[in-house]
Amino acid sequence: MTDSPIQKLKDKSRKITNIQEASEILHWDQEVMMPEKGVEARQQQLSTLSGLSHQILVSDELKQILEKINPSKLDEGGKSSYREVKREHDRSSSIDQELIEEISSKSSQTLDKWKKARKEGKFEIVQEDLEELIELKREYANQINSEEEPYKVLFKDYEPYIEFENMQEVMEALRDELTDLFKKIKESGIRPENCFEKEASEERQLELNEDILDDLGYDWSRGRLDTSEHPFTVGNQHDARITTRFNTDDISKSILPTIHEFGHALYELGLPKEYYGLPAGSSRDLSIHESQSRLWENHVARSKEFWNHFTPKLQEIEAFENISVEQAWKSINRVKEENLIRVEADEVSYHLHIYLRYSLERKLINGEIEVEELPEKWDDKTEELFGLSPENDVEGVLQDIHWYQGSIGYFTTYSLGSVLSAQIYNALEDDIENLDEKINNGEFTELREWLKENIHSKGSLYKTEDLVKQATGENLNPDHFLDYIEDKYRNIYNL
Amino acid sequence: MTDSPIQKLKDKSRKITNIQEASEILHWDQEVMMPEKGVEARQQQLSTLSGLSHQILVSDELKQILEKINPSKLDEGGKSSYREVKREHDRSSSIDQELIEEISSKSSQTLDKWKKARKEGKFEIVQEDLEELIELKREYANQINSEEEPYKVLFKDYEPYIEFENMQEVMEALRDELTDLFKKIKESGIRPENCFEKEASEERQLELNEDILDDLGYDWSRGRLDTSEHPFTVGNQHDARITTRFNTDDISKSILPTIHEFGHALYELGLPKEYYGLPAGSSRDLSIHESQSRLWENHVARSKEFWNHFTPKLQEIEAFENISVEQAWKSINRVKEENLIRVEADEVSYHLHIYLRYSLERKLINGEIEVEELPEKWDDKTEELFGLSPENDVEGVLQDIHWYQGSIGYFTTYSLGSVLSAQIYNALEDDIENLDEKINNGEFTELREWLKENIHSKGSLYKTEDLVKQATGENLNPDHFLDYIEDKYRNIYNL
Repeated sequence: MTDSPIQKLKDKSRKITNIQEASEILHWDQEVMMPEKGVEARQQQLSTLSGLSHQILVSDELKQILEKINPSKLDEGGKSSYREVKREHDRSSSIDQELIEEISSKSSQTLDKWKKARKEGKFEIVQEDLEELIELKREYANQINSEEEPYKVLFKDYEPYIEFENMQEVMEALRDELTDLFKKIKESGIRPENCFEKEASEERQLELNEDILDDLGYDWSRGRLDTSEHPFTVGNQHDARITTRFNTDDISKSILPTIHEFGHALYELGLPKEYYGLPAGSSRDLSIHESQSRLWENHVARSKEFWNHFTPKLQEIEAFENISVEQAWKSINRVKEENLIRVEADEVSYHLHIYLRYSLERKLINGEIEVEELPEKWDDKTEELFGLSPENDVEGVLQDIHWYQGSIGYFTTYSLGSVLSAQIYNALEDDIENLDEKINNGEFTELREWLKENIHSKGSLYKTEDLVKQATGENLNPDHFLDYIEDKYRNIYNL
Repeated sequence: MTDSPIQKLKDKSRKITNIQEASEILHWDQEVMMPEKGVEARQQQLSTLSGLSHQILVSDELKQILEKINPSKLDEGGKSSYREVKREHDRSSSIDQELIEEISSKSSQTLDKWKKARKEGKFEIVQEDLEELIELKREYANQINSEEEPYKVLFKDYEPYIEFENMQEVMEALRDELTDLFKKIKESGIRPENCFEKEASEERQLELNEDILDDLGYDWSRGRLDTSEHPFTVGNQHDARITTRFNTDDISKSILPTIHEFGHALYELGLPKEYYGLPAGSSRDLSIHESQSRLWENHVARSKEFWNHFTPKLQEIEAFENISVEQAWKSINRVKEENLIRVEADEVSYHLHIYLRYSLERKLINGEIEVEELPEKWDDKTEELFGLSPENDVEGVLQDIHWYQGSIGYFTTYSLGSVLSAQIYNALEDDIENLDEKINNGEFTELREWLKENIHSKGSLYKTEDLVKQATGENLNPDHFLDYIEDKYRNIYNL
């Protein structure tokens, strides 16, 4: 008996997933375990694997399988397999193999130059490579769809199922409201101290982070906690691993990343096991993933209720024995009015950082500004949005890796993640009785279960906007985030 | 410009290697790092990767590339690439895809049953599955070459370039000489005590093992040391990792595995970097690999000179502060006359264990004995070779994993490894001035360099027997091993 076309399609999907999951473990190993000189062979292994999954995706064999399928006759799982595999097949097939290789090689060159440029604080070092990379990305967008705004095409790489216009509206609403809020906070004259800047050993921090993960309900039989330069999560429903880092000067800088990554891992672990390898068993795109990490980081771990529960545990560390809930809560939420670094930003200014990058990268890829103008434009925008100016390019245009590795159109997914996390949290607060009190008591079971039922277990069965609508009853809507943020900050800063 | 056929062949070789190296890291991760419930997805990933490398190996594309190559016109590196890839292509292409899948699935079933059978001490539990697996392996040998003795065909899976007749002669020489030596040792009445049976914490053992690896010259920038249930090595010239285990009852049980695995890792690390992915940059087969681990384990770490150097370090651990060189050396070499377990055997009885397995598996696969007779035949052979009888099947036919995972013809490579290590050590003793004294002083540089120059750096440029001849000036010859072993044991047991 031969397999039906949809079975064959699912087989291909599983193969592609298995190759990608293998690559993820190789990446994890590279960041966490690999001896330093392993990098050269590892790059070759990863490049072979990515070539193989690409080959399956653009193969004539897959094309013919897709042509034989009538999606209207499929069940829900079949439909999602067809939709996602076809989308990726169509997109990948429209790009010349040569261009893919050029982008890959130019990206890694540009990345190397960026590292050098950051070290020496000179944008000029990377400028020419970045120009060539942007040119290649324009051509990439052009090959996919020459009729559409290039930036819009690139955005779809990260968010195929969020309307570009919705994203725009969200970004503009955030800019308008948060510029204003940020200004008011600065003018309030209130400056909560940071009570987390006290020494704790790495061993003690590790213990604390493990306690937190126990508390939140991390399944250690399907995960592990390690350290790496930048915290990240890899995995799937069978094995989702977290990394964090320890900061002996400020313990919140290891607590928050751990909880953030927990949110990512919990999403992966909540995907249906029986659909491993298929879209129905795979996470939705970046914004939804980020909504899960930020829900735990911001809505849980930055709430007063969480600190009611957690402060006594922190007090067990000698340096923190006199910390109060109020101090901790204000510290973790304080606005850093002089900060120019995105990854260290608070919840208010964070989205101004994103807006800055979004507005510049959009003009850049659409040809409205040139690479050489970037440092100046960056500084202008910083002045406009924050009323501050960077001291140098390391604090400015060189601070983030994204552009220099060819990721254009990625940044907005961070803000969309925050917006979605607030929208989802708002919906689940309606469903879970006395959630605040449960968090006060360190009871997270119902929260985890709601997320699993309404988000995690759906995998990629539905398009992003449909998933959001099913879970929250409405379309992508920035109001919940803006209400949440204004409410919190009005309270802290007496606005 | 299109690539020449040999360039295309090398490209395929690099792809296959990269997939296999990726699989090796996934295996390592599974044994050392993976959370327990990751196993299901990991199996799928590994099976996808092994399917992909098999597909490349048996592809028409590769067949056509091979047909276009005239090997007489190639340089040495090209010749080895052609020879090794063609051999693997021919062999793999001769087997039905269906049979490969049947063997893979039956092996993993049999393995599960074996675990159960061991636990309950009942061979009957696994008997039927083993019968079916043996039948499938017979068919496998038949598809590759129906004219040849099945056992000979299977042996070539592990040792394509060692003459079957040479292996036979070696095994018979070992049986004859060592049965006799073992008997004399038993009759000598001398029983050195085991001075290693003293408590040392795992932390202290780890420290000691790291010290040993520093001492021997392990390159930590291309390696790491971890623990796993069974010690093993994975890797290549860029990244070769060791695992060991700690035994708090007997410290020699962690020292020796570490040094054994160091020998494997040093081989990988000595392969030429510029040929990564090609036969010229890949290790030769199992016997040569084992010769490298056993050279360090037996000829170095079981020598009096090594203990002259190392005993003071061991004395730094409180429990061992009164140990003498003589005690340590005799302990590490003592014959365990009542031992029935291969992996715990000394250098004398070890090869009797191998001979037992070799003689049974050969008859088994050739159809001269039946699976159901195995336990009885095992016990008879044990009586014949050791003058002992197993108390149960766990001490007998169920003790090793090999047959139950379909590895028939593998065991003799262990003995060949020992024989080769003695032959190689004999050759390098002629070249390195005052080697004994250097080991007394913990100087291993020249030893490492000799091995790199004469074995490691050759990769698979030459066939095994040619490599051996170039390095030692003669063909595979068991006399060096027998001289070494008789010399050592005559000394210890006053024979």
